[in-house]
Amino acid sequence: MPVLTLYYAPGTCAQAVRIALEEAQAPHALVRVDFASQQQRTPEYLAVNPKGRVPALATEHGTLTETPALLVYVAQRFAQANLAPSDAFGLARMQEFNSYLASTVHIAHAHRPRAARWADEPEAQAAMQRKVPANMRECFALIERHYLADAAKGPWVLGEQYSVADGYLFTVAGWLKSDGVDIAEFPRVAAHSQRMAQRPAVQRALA
Amino acid sequence: MPVLTLYYAPGTCAQAVRIALEEAQAPHALVRVDFASQQQRTPEYLAVNPKGRVPALATEHGTLTETPALLVYVAQRFAQANLAPSDAFGLARMQEFNSYLASTVHIAHAHRPRAARWADEPEAQAAMQRKVPANMRECFALIERHYLADAAKGPWVLGEQYSVADGYLFTVAGWLKSDGVDIAEFPRVAAHSQRMAQRPAVQRALA
Ligand SMILES: N[C@@H](CCC(=O)N[C@@H](CS)C(=O)NCC(=O)O)C(=O)O
Ligand SMILES: N[C@@H](CCC(=O)N[C@@H](CS)C(=O)NCC(=O)O)C(=O)O
Repeated sequence: MPVLTLYYAPGTCAQAVRIALEEAQAPHALVRVDFASQQQRTPEYLAVNPKGRVPALATEHGTLTETPALLVYVAQRFAQANLAPSDAFGLARMQEFNSYLASTVHIAHAHRPRAARWADEPEAQAAMQRKVPANMRECFALIERHYLADAAKGPWVLGEQYSVADGYLFTVAGWLKSDGVDIAEFPRVAAHSQRMAQRPAVQRALA
Repeated sequence: MPVLTLYYAPGTCAQAVRIALEEAQAPHALVRVDFASQQQRTPEYLAVNPKGRVPALATEHGTLTETPALLVYVAQRFAQANLAPSDAFGLARMQEFNSYLASTVHIAHAHRPRAARWADEPEAQAAMQRKVPANMRECFALIERHYLADAAKGPWVLGEQYSVADGYLFTVAGWLKSDGVDIAEFPRVAAHSQRMAQRPAVQRALA
């Protein structure tokens, strides 16, 4: 009986956590939340996650939310899988990257499908949506130039060490196309996504 | 000679890191970034943090950014100050809270002073600004009800244990007034801010 249950919806940031669970070979159950019928706003789901979002991870100690928190939890709970640095600086660098994805890149993207969160007027929502490609480009230019700058360090976000940050980058980079940005504009990001797509754990998570 | 240098601007999320450094009694230098003259966009500062934001923390291993990452770094580097749980679930719960502040609450607030990030048209920016009070209310209602729900657990975000999450909540709650929301609408948040204001480390950080 798995003690971990991941609440997810396909194509969302929850995919990063599915990849981490597969990489860790962590026994887990999956519960799909149906966005088409707005299941995330039902009383049943709000009892799981009062924020009405995915991912949420039920554990024997309680339910955790927020992608960067779930990722560090999976990495530390299944430490033998070596999915996060164990020194304070290395861990903080990973959290820095994941936090940037959650608080800046995910947000840049969300202004397309979820513009209504930040303004009621349809014209204002359309104005936000028009700016999404430029903002996603700016974010990925920074990732390309700053975080993936030094290919000599290794093929992954943290260099030689594969970590939960890689599945998160892969997931968010997967949104570029629908945001109107060609991933080929960012050759290191594109190569990273190709490497990721070859990993058996990633293939299982997407299946 | 302090090995840590915090780049900050007054009133910003960098205050949470200043509080953490003071609580940890961590030797550190401070460099003020002048937002009035747009110093965050100068080549000199972009060499420190290519994102053009504060906080940034220079260490002997390199410069870290993103508030939740800086907070966990300070807590783990100065572990004797006991500013973070050491078990995987407790640490993830703290990261969950900090991640919520960074990716949802800070963003709800930023649509007032930084609306131009997400739309070019002045009318669209005004529409976003109009929604800020409602969005901040929704976030703080969740904090009040979900995260500070159980006063029996203790006076701090994590219950009995004071952590870096408390300085972060205090900092973000400090933005409510300028966002047009009365903190008194959230009695547990208001009481938390009052407790925080009494701590010597917080007083030093605000001085
Ligand atoms: N800060 C959260 C954001 C979670 C989030 O926004 N999830 C989206 C899917 S990627 C969602 O559940 N949206 C549903 C909705 O807004 O109704 C995290 O990083 O986990
Ligand atoms: N995700 C970052 C956000 C940092 C951020 O937005 N900082 C603001 C101050 S609270 C800033 O430097 N703004 C300057 C600007 O936008 O020009 C974090 O949590 O540290």
